[in-house]
Amino acid sequence: MKPLVVSLGDPAGVGPELVAEAWIARDREALPPFAVVGGVRLLASAAAARGHALPVEPVASLDEVADAFGRALPVLGDLDAPWRPGEPDKDGAALALASLERATALAVSGEAGGLVTGPIAKSLLGEVGFHFPGQTEFVAHACGIAAQDAVMMLAGPQLRTIPLTVHLPLARVPGQITLDLLVRRGRIAAAALQRDFGIAAPRIAVAALNPHAGEDGRMGDEEIRIIAPAIAALRGEGIEATGPYPADALFAPRARRDYDVALCMYHDQALIPLKALDFDRGVNVTLGLPIVRTSADHGTAFGIAGSGQADPGATIAAIRMAGECAARRASIA
Amino acid sequence: MKPLVVSLGDPAGVGPELVAEAWIARDREALPPFAVVGGVRLLASAAAARGHALPVEPVASLDEVADAFGRALPVLGDLDAPWRPGEPDKDGAALALASLERATALAVSGEAGGLVTGPIAKSLLGEVGFHFPGQTEFVAHACGIAAQDAVMMLAGPQLRTIPLTVHLPLARVPGQITLDLLVRRGRIAAAALQRDFGIAAPRIAVAALNPHAGEDGRMGDEEIRIIAPAIAALRGEGIEATGPYPADALFAPRARRDYDVALCMYHDQALIPLKALDFDRGVNVTLGLPIVRTSADHGTAFGIAGSGQADPGATIAAIRMAGECAARRASIA
Repeated sequence: MKPLVVSLGDPAGVGPELVAEAWIARDREALPPFAVVGGVRLLASAAAARGHALPVEPVASLDEVADAFGRALPVLGDLDAPWRPGEPDKDGAALALASLERATALAVSGEAGGLVTGPIAKSLLGEVGFHFPGQTEFVAHACGIAAQDAVMMLAGPQLRTIPLTVHLPLARVPGQITLDLLVRRGRIAAAALQRDFGIAAPRIAVAALNPHAGEDGRMGDEEIRIIAPAIAALRGEGIEATGPYPADALFAPRARRDYDVALCMYHDQALIPLKALDFDRGVNVTLGLPIVRTSADHGTAFGIAGSGQADPGATIAAIRMAGECAARRASIA
Repeated sequence: MKPLVVSLGDPAGVGPELVAEAWIARDREALPPFAVVGGVRLLASAAAARGHALPVEPVASLDEVADAFGRALPVLGDLDAPWRPGEPDKDGAALALASLERATALAVSGEAGGLVTGPIAKSLLGEVGFHFPGQTEFVAHACGIAAQDAVMMLAGPQLRTIPLTVHLPLARVPGQITLDLLVRRGRIAAAALQRDFGIAAPRIAVAALNPHAGEDGRMGDEEIRIIAPAIAALRGEGIEATGPYPADALFAPRARRDYDVALCMYHDQALIPLKALDFDRGVNVTLGLPIVRTSADHGTAFGIAGSGQADPGATIAAIRMAGECAARRASIA
């Protein structure tokens, strides 16, 4: 399998220290070989603040990663910056963007087996020419995929969820739930769980929008008008979609055994159970792309960068999951 | 402390078998003395189906409970019905209502130390003259309290939550969030956590309505217009209210250490984390009443009544919590 490529994320955030911790844990966590784009000095400084003397090895191409990975963290290219944790600025944002662009290009070209992105600060990136709502949309665009067909899935050890809508005021959510969107996302989820996660017949549990799944229309009718017909359409295509289920019961321990992913109607419906159950281990994986792409399901955490408090669990899980998905694609190809 | 009184709930549901299981577990679970209103034959039949020879002892008044409780499940009054699990009908609903009315009256009069209600089916109760949205509103009315001042709290071993709005279509939730409602519920919650739960300075974490708490108004402005001013008003009264917090992070393990109750904006926001973490142990407790009232946080579960599958954990927790709250009130009085 080809090595993974990791973007630095914002240099003032927790991205650099966590990827350093992931490399240090490579044997214990059985992580696949990866290289970071940029940050030779930055990564060593961030690791030093956590008490590690991190060996960093500049590599000229991903071909050198397999050999170097056992002895040092391979770093590709000359991008770098002084380490100023918790002090984001435009220079750091420009570095984060350059690292993301090069890392994405290496995944799109097929030189890397998959892409793991570090956390960025969207507001600062906007000032240096980044005009996407987030990294997912950027990566989709680089792959030539429509943003709405790049499907965000959150995956933890106990639960996988997909939010149908994401960064919207709650008041605008009901108007965005459409049969077309549900069916498209359901298809992409089913195909990706087969190809990248090795699940032969993925079971998709669809959450209701309203409390008690609307109680036969007494508390909202989106279930009757939109969600149930979408489930029927997916089932008509041979996809194991079921529901709509009352969302409060859907994440209880027994209920979780009966599906491979919960298709949720809005951000907090998908993220509340994931973070309640699998905090510090949640991975954001983008389904529907020609490349494998994951990230840790947290932000830059500027407030604790450099303090040693940030937990590398989600970064380690993101690298491991990217490696597993890439290996499945390689074995099929 | 005076004994608790328990209403049967719908006789075709899981209520009778679970209260029987609670009595059987009374020593192991250190439950306080309680009596059930009605169901001498029903309770014995429901227990027999779970493999228990349940001793049931009719009592003429709650004064006899302390003496009887060690040797038999005390049952007050002649209300009874044949046991037909999973087959709800109007006769059963009428029995459930009569048991609820008598049990509530015994708590309101002060003869019982607290009230634990069994699960009912609201649609059937409507046909026998019950015209409240649920038992909480019925009990509030019996206590002479406005329904909006009877505050539902869900409490499990790991988490307590209060939903500000409950049985509404999601599309109607944003319009129901008002400063007045938030402040009233916050006050009631703080007073009840002090009086009934022994928390000297209750910490109330207030959830945001919108994802990322609205991100400074970019994804909804209810946080700025309504929720933050309500928190400020509560703090002005000396109540330890904080937030609004992004709801997805609020139920993560570390975050849960920092508050005693999460005040949530809608049904699923409060119930998803509770059921994900504390399923089968969730208690519904009504704050703000002159009496103590709890119930198991589940419904009649007609589909599994009589099968032995229903878990008595929540019923046991509801009885224990009612006893603890009643003991605190008795020690203050």
